[in-house]
Amino acid sequence: MTDAAISRFPVPALDDLPEDIRTRILAVQEKSGFVPNVFLALAHRPEEFRAFMAYHDALMEKEGGLSKAEREMIVVATSADNGCQYCVIAHGAILRIRARHPLLADQIAVNHRKADITPRQKAMLDFALKVSRDSRAVGEADFEALRAQGFDDEDIWDISAVTAFFGLSNRMANVTSMRPNDEFYTLGRG
Amino acid sequence: MTDAAISRFPVPALDDLPEDIRTRILAVQEKSGFVPNVFLALAHRPEEFRAFMAYHDALMEKEGGLSKAEREMIVVATSADNGCQYCVIAHGAILRIRARHPLLADQIAVNHRKADITPRQKAMLDFALKVSRDSRAVGEADFEALRAQGFDDEDIWDISAVTAFFGLSNRMANVTSMRPNDEFYTLGRG
Amino acid sequence: MTDAAISRFPVPALDDLPEDIRTRILAVQEKSGFVPNVFLALAHRPEEFRAFMAYHDALMEKEGGLSKAEREMIVVATSADNGCQYCVIAHGAILRIRARHPLLADQIAVNHRKADITPRQKAMLDFALKVSRDSRAVGEADFEALRAQGFDDEDIWDISAVTAFFGLSNRMANVTSMRPNDEFYTLGRG
Amino acid sequence: MTDAAISRFPVPALDDLPEDIRTRILAVQEKSGFVPNVFLALAHRPEEFRAFMAYHDALMEKEGGLSKAEREMIVVATSADNGCQYCVIAHGAILRIRARHPLLADQIAVNHRKADITPRQKAMLDFALKVSRDSRAVGEADFEALRAQGFDDEDIWDISAVTAFFGLSNRMANVTSMRPNDEFYTLGRG
Amino acid sequence: MTDAAISRFPVPALDDLPEDIRTRILAVQEKSGFVPNVFLALAHRPEEFRAFMAYHDALMEKEGGLSKAEREMIVVATSADNGCQYCVIAHGAILRIRARHPLLADQIAVNHRKADITPRQKAMLDFALKVSRDSRAVGEADFEALRAQGFDDEDIWDISAVTAFFGLSNRMANVTSMRPNDEFYTLGRG
Amino acid sequence: MTDAAISRFPVPALDDLPEDIRTRILAVQEKSGFVPNVFLALAHRPEEFRAFMAYHDALMEKEGGLSKAEREMIVVATSADNGCQYCVIAHGAILRIRARHPLLADQIAVNHRKADITPRQKAMLDFALKVSRDSRAVGEADFEALRAQGFDDEDIWDISAVTAFFGLSNRMANVTSMRPNDEFYTLGRG
Repeated sequence: MTDAAISRFPVPALDDLPEDIRTRILAVQEKSGFVPNVFLALAHRPEEFRAFMAYHDALMEKEGGLSKAEREMIVVATSADNGCQYCVIAHGAILRIRARHPLLADQIAVNHRKADITPRQKAMLDFALKVSRDSRAVGEADFEALRAQGFDDEDIWDISAVTAFFGLSNRMANVTSMRPNDEFYTLGRG
Repeated sequence: MTDAAISRFPVPALDDLPEDIRTRILAVQEKSGFVPNVFLALAHRPEEFRAFMAYHDALMEKEGGLSKAEREMIVVATSADNGCQYCVIAHGAILRIRARHPLLADQIAVNHRKADITPRQKAMLDFALKVSRDSRAVGEADFEALRAQGFDDEDIWDISAVTAFFGLSNRMANVTSMRPNDEFYTLGRG
Repeated sequence: MTDAAISRFPVPALDDLPEDIRTRILAVQEKSGFVPNVFLALAHRPEEFRAFMAYHDALMEKEGGLSKAEREMIVVATSADNGCQYCVIAHGAILRIRARHPLLADQIAVNHRKADITPRQKAMLDFALKVSRDSRAVGEADFEALRAQGFDDEDIWDISAVTAFFGLSNRMANVTSMRPNDEFYTLGRG
Repeated sequence: MTDAAISRFPVPALDDLPEDIRTRILAVQEKSGFVPNVFLALAHRPEEFRAFMAYHDALMEKEGGLSKAEREMIVVATSADNGCQYCVIAHGAILRIRARHPLLADQIAVNHRKADITPRQKAMLDFALKVSRDSRAVGEADFEALRAQGFDDEDIWDISAVTAFFGLSNRMANVTSMRPNDEFYTLGRG
Repeated sequence: MTDAAISRFPVPALDDLPEDIRTRILAVQEKSGFVPNVFLALAHRPEEFRAFMAYHDALMEKEGGLSKAEREMIVVATSADNGCQYCVIAHGAILRIRARHPLLADQIAVNHRKADITPRQKAMLDFALKVSRDSRAVGEADFEALRAQGFDDEDIWDISAVTAFFGLSNRMANVTSMRPNDEFYTLGRG
Repeated sequence: MTDAAISRFPVPALDDLPEDIRTRILAVQEKSGFVPNVFLALAHRPEEFRAFMAYHDALMEKEGGLSKAEREMIVVATSADNGCQYCVIAHGAILRIRARHPLLADQIAVNHRKADITPRQKAMLDFALKVSRDSRAVGEADFEALRAQGFDDEDIWDISAVTAFFGLSNRMANVTSMRPNDEFYTLGRG
C-alpha cells in the first residue's frame, strides 16, 4: 500500500516547495511522525495551500464554545456524508485522540444518532448536516434548536464554518483522490 | 461503555432461551471469544431468529463465485449506505479478517470507488448499491456490466441476495438501536 | 400471457424439488387453486427458499397486535414504494381478501394518505415507509407517534420486521423479474 | 363508501352548474353510466373546468402517432409517480379498456419496466417520467432515444404535453383529495 | 441574440395562424411592445394554445384573495425550482412590474426564504413548492399552516392551481427549449 | 431596502477593523463605488476573513486555462444550485461584466443547459455541478469528458476548486443571511 498514489495530481517533492510550506510540513512531520498526505497533495498549489491552512487553523486551533473534539465530530459526520475517505479516516483518528474515545469516530461516521455523544452534540451534528446538505433551508428554527442546547451565536458560526470549510476539503479530496496515510487507521484505537 | 444497552427491546438471558438458540450462541462465543450482540438482540423473537440465521448461513457460508471477503464487502458497502452502525462495524471486522487487509473495511464504508479493490469488485459494489437503493430500475444493462467483469447469473443472484438480506438486517438494527460489541472496532487491524 | 417467463433465473420443475419444498408448494396450490410464482422462482435456491418461508410465516402467520390485513397493508405500501410488481399485485389480492375490502389495495399502493383506513393505520404506514426508506433516521419521536396511536413495542417490532422482510423480497423480485400470476389481479375484487 | 367526500372543496349540484358544463357532464354520464368525480370536483371553478376539459380533449381525443392506449399509459405511469390516486385508478380503467388488456394498468402503475409493453412503449414512458420529474435536464440525447424508436417530433410534443397536463391534474387531485369513483376499480378487468 | 431559435419545434408565421390566435397575439404586442415568445412557440398547436391561454387567464386575471403580484411570486418560485428559464425570466419581469419592486424576482428565484416578502407570502411559497415537488404528501397540516396566515380555502385552491398550471408550462418550455425574449431581462428594474 | 440587515451576525464598523482589512475594504470601495456586503459580514471574524480572501484571490485572480468569465459562470451555476442569494446576485453582476453579456447570468442561474454558452462551457458546468452535489462519485469518466472538450488537469483542478470554495461561501452566506447589495441587481445589464 505504501506505493499507492496519494493524489491524481502531481505531488511536489519536499525540496521543491517554497520555504514556508516546507517548514510547515517538516513541523507536522516532527510532531506526528509522518506527513499527512493532505499537505503533500495540496502543496501542488502553494497559494491555495497557504489559504487552506490559514483557514483551517483559524477554525480548528482557536478557543471557543466548541471543544476541539466537538469540532472533529463535525468534520467526521459531514465528511462521511460527503463520501470523503481522506477526511473521515484522518479526522477520525484525530477525533479518537482528542476525545480520548476509541469508538466515537466510527460511530459518528456511520450514524451520529446512535453515537456515544450527548444530546447537545447530536443537535450540533444535526445542524452541521443540514448546513452541509441543504444550507438554503437553514433558518430561525434551527438557531432556536441550537440555543436550546446552550449554543450561542458564535458557536453557531463555528459549527457552520467548520462544516463549510471541510465541505471544500471533501470536494478537493474527492476530485484529487487524496489517499489517507495508513497510519491514520489505527491511531487512537488503543 | 460495557453497560450501554444493546437494544431498545428486551434482551433475553441466555438461560431463558430455547435450547437450539442457546447452543448456537454458545458455539459462536466459543469461537469468537464473545457473543456478538446481534444474537442476543434478535433472540427476543426465537422464530425470527432461526429464520434469520438460516438465511444468513445460506448466503454467507456457501461456496460460490464470490469469495467470503467479497460477500463481506457487499455487507459493508450497503450497510454504510443504510446508516447501520451494527453491520458496518461488525462486518467491517469480519471483512478485515477474511480479506486479511486492515484498511479495506473503512475505505469501503466511506466510498468504495476509492478502495483498494479490483475493478470487478467495484462493479460488484456498484450493482449491490443499485439493488439496495433502487432495485426497481435494475435491468439487463446492469447484468451486462456484471457479465463483462466475469460474473455469471448465480453470482448476480448472490450479490442481490446478500444485499437484500442485509437490507433487512440494517433496518432491524436501526429500529432496535442494536449496538456493536466494542471488540469489533479493533479486530483485524493488526 | 400464460407463457411469459416468471423469472430471469431458472425455474425448477416441481418434480425436481426436494420433498419438503414440493410438499409446501402442493399445499399452497391445493389451497389457492394455483401456485404463486414466488414459490417457483425462489425454489431455485432451496436453502434460501426454506429460510424465506420460515421468516415469512414467523411474521405473517403469528398472532399479535396487528391484524393480518394490517400486515398486508404494510406489504402493499412499502412494496409499491420499492416498485415491486410481484408484491404489490400478489399481496394486493391478499389484502383485499383479508380486509374484505375491494378498494384498499389499489388506494394504498398509490397513496396511503388517501386510503379508506384509520388514522392509526396511516401512522403505521408512515412509520413503515420511514423504516423502508430511511431507517437510519428512525428514533424516539417515531416511537412516540406510534404509541400515541396505541401501538406497543411488540407492534413496532412487527411493523419494522414486516417492512424489512418485504424489502428483501422486493429486491429479489425486482432482480429476478418475478412475474405475478394473472390470477392475483382480480382476486378479492368481487 | 358511496358517502365518502369526493373533494375537500365544495362540490356543486348539477342543477347549479352553467348550462355548458351540465350538458357535458350529462353526456359523459350517458356514455359511462356514471359521472366521474373529476367533473364534479373541478366544476367548482367553471372557468378552469372549461379550460381543463378543452386541454384534455386537445391532447387525448386527437389523432396522431400515439395510440389512445399509449396516451393512457403515459397518464398511468406519471400519475403513479406523482402519487395521484384519482388519475391512476380512473385512467387505469380507461387504459384497460383502450388497450383491451386487463393487466397493463396495474403493471405500469408499479413499474413500467416490467410491464407487458413494447420496447418503444418503455422508451416513451422513460421519457415521460423524465419530463415529469426533471424536465430541466431533457435534451437532445432524450430526443435521439425516442427517434431511435420511431417517434417523430410531433409525437415527442404529445408525450410531453400529456405528461405536463396530467402533472397539473395530479397536483389538483392531490390538493383537493379527489376521490375516484368505485366503478373505476373493476372496469376492464373482465 | 435576436436570431436565436425560440423553440425546438416549428414556429408559425403570424399570417398562418387562425384569426383568433393572431388577434390575441397582436393585442399583446400592442400592449407590451413585443410578442412574448410563449405565444409563438405554443401557437404551433392551436387547440392547445387556446386551452392554455384560457386556463392562464382564468387563474391569473381573476380577482381573489391573492394579489396579482403574489400569483407571480408563485410562478417565479416554482418555475425556478423546475429549472424553467422562460418562466423565471418572463414572469420575473412581470413580478417586478406588478409588485413595483425591482429586487423581488431575483430574490425569490434563488431562495424565497430570504426575499423581501411577508411571513404570509413565505408560507404561500412554502406551500406552492410542496405542491410542485411532492403533492402526494399535501394534507391537513399544510392547510392549517395557510389558514394561520389568513388564507381561506379558495386562496388555497388558487395557490395550488397557479402552481399546477405553471408546472405544465415549465415542462413544455423545457421540452421545447422556449427562449425568453431579451426584453424581459431588464423590464421593471428601473 | 437600504436599512435591511446584511447579516444575522454582528457587522463591524470600518473603524473597528484591523488595518489590513480596512485597507482592503477601502480599496474595493474605491474601485466598485460601494462595499460589497460580503466584506463587512465576514469581517466579523478577521482571521477567517483573511484566509477567505486569500483563497478567493488565489482562485479567481490567477491566470490559467479558464477565463475569468468562465470562473464566474461556475460560481453562478453552483451558487444557484445551493440556493445562495448573495453569490448568485453578486457574482451574476460580475459575470455580466466580465463576459460583456447581459443575459448569461440569469440564464445560467436557472438552467445552464439552455444558456448562450459553448458546449465546452456546458461540460465545465456539468462537472462543477457534479463536484458540488456528489463529489464522491467523481471519477475517470468525468475527467475524460472534460479532456474531450480541451480541458487539461490544471483546468480540472481550477473548476473543482472554484466550486468547492464557493460551496463554502454559499454555506456561510446562507447561515449568516448575507444580503446582496442593491447595486448588484442592475450592474452589467446595460
